[in-house]
Amino acid sequence: MKTVKTIKEVRQQVREWKREGLSIGLVPTMGCLHEGHKSLIDTAVKENDRVIVSVFVNPIQFGPNEDFKTYPRDIEHDKKLCESSGASMIFNPEPSEMYFENRSTNVEVEGLTEGLCGAKRPGHFRGVCTVVSKLFNIVTPDRAYFGEKDAQQLAVVKRMVRDLNFDVQVVGCPIIREEDGLAKSSRNTYLSKEERQASLVLNKSLKKAKKLLEDGEKDALLVKRVIEQEINKQPLARIDYIEIADSESLRPVKKADESLLIAIAVFIGKTRLIDNFTFRTGEK
Amino acid sequence: MKTVKTIKEVRQQVREWKREGLSIGLVPTMGCLHEGHKSLIDTAVKENDRVIVSVFVNPIQFGPNEDFKTYPRDIEHDKKLCESSGASMIFNPEPSEMYFENRSTNVEVEGLTEGLCGAKRPGHFRGVCTVVSKLFNIVTPDRAYFGEKDAQQLAVVKRMVRDLNFDVQVVGCPIIREEDGLAKSSRNTYLSKEERQASLVLNKSLKKAKKLLEDGEKDALLVKRVIEQEINKQPLARIDYIEIADSESLRPVKKADESLLIAIAVFIGKTRLIDNFTFRTGEK
Repeated sequence: MKTVKTIKEVRQQVREWKREGLSIGLVPTMGCLHEGHKSLIDTAVKENDRVIVSVFVNPIQFGPNEDFKTYPRDIEHDKKLCESSGASMIFNPEPSEMYFENRSTNVEVEGLTEGLCGAKRPGHFRGVCTVVSKLFNIVTPDRAYFGEKDAQQLAVVKRMVRDLNFDVQVVGCPIIREEDGLAKSSRNTYLSKEERQASLVLNKSLKKAKKLLEDGEKDALLVKRVIEQEINKQPLARIDYIEIADSESLRPVKKADESLLIAIAVFIGKTRLIDNFTFRTGEK
Repeated sequence: MKTVKTIKEVRQQVREWKREGLSIGLVPTMGCLHEGHKSLIDTAVKENDRVIVSVFVNPIQFGPNEDFKTYPRDIEHDKKLCESSGASMIFNPEPSEMYFENRSTNVEVEGLTEGLCGAKRPGHFRGVCTVVSKLFNIVTPDRAYFGEKDAQQLAVVKRMVRDLNFDVQVVGCPIIREEDGLAKSSRNTYLSKEERQASLVLNKSLKKAKKLLEDGEKDALLVKRVIEQEINKQPLARIDYIEIADSESLRPVKKADESLLIAIAVFIGKTRLIDNFTFRTGEK
């Protein structure tokens, strides 16, 4: 498995593979890979002849007060995980390889990005769409793999691919959890032992909401309130948002009678964690 | 030569050509093709194995009070011109083939789009960049051809290609003029006989400016004033803008000691025409 730093090297390799008629899967990541990423890579390896994992902490998707500088990085660990999972290449560029100082082009998805994380992190999804567009143009993958943990990101990338006619199939992969239910995330490494315990409240509150919906509750506001109450029991937790939205348009709903995304963002101490589930009426 | 209406047909043909190792040139147009377009197609035919001409009056690059509905269309004429020029395919989609009703993705180049036509036509270049991104993703050309008449558009598309890593070479082609000097444009068909005569003032005023710069004039404001006075002599002409800008950043300059773009937009009656030239200090 090769690790390359330049766009030119990626293009050369991709051109060679395409000449041989090989299909290419892309797994875009910010590194510090965990079991969640591994499940994306595993799926990609199954479905494609060659898999490129991009490891790039993308500066333009972080807000000025967010954790770009402290975001965990561990390329040696990432190399081992990619190698053992059967990936063919890591693309690990410097920010200067990806962005000219006078760069001035952005890709923006409106509507879908207004609520949820988009409301709390202005410019975040513009940064995501821009870097994903660049990666698609550099790698020209047949398929690209994104986790359902970032449910809004997945919906936004799918919309972008549809609207801009990228010839890429976007594949969403299920959330991978720790044994005790916490959704895997690179940011979990920020948590103290006490916070790690407190973080269970995310999954716990969502489970309660799921039970309610499965039992036929239609009042989305009531479901939100139940999540809120559950999270507020945990003193180290501070709610960023709780949202029940149409799973396609991501618009908030009042009545739970369609295909729903139930998504939350919660600060545990200084660490912002997200979790979600989707629910279709009549589902058990 | 084929004329196709769907993205799917373009992709199928392109895939076949790529399998055969053929290079592809794209000439994006809004149709009603004239000698200016023909020069783009001719160049593309020389430099590529296959040439696709897109003919699409792109609704999202027109402002609400602009001429989207009345913009001239003549696909039978366009077919003849493309066929006789050696193009391999016309891509002539309906707006509904290009845009979903709930489309919400745009590509935006900032900075370069703030002055000149961008200042006068808000959203215009966002519409251009979005449709060009789509065409690049549909056609995946090796080279794409744009006229220097739309100097700002050419600069903006080049910037977009660089910033988003499109694997496309953008080729700019010189302005083609009528014998009396008027730059060829589909919008020239709007002009009455009297207006057609009045339109010569664009080229005439630019020629005066060029002479001044060639003779060593360094005061950009003075050069602008000379253009302004010349245009104002023509009663049917109304200045939209006169700009002297750095040819790369498109920022207005006061001193003419670099690589310059001298660009004007002038209403002749209700018809808005543009013209320009580039000038390098020391050039004759």
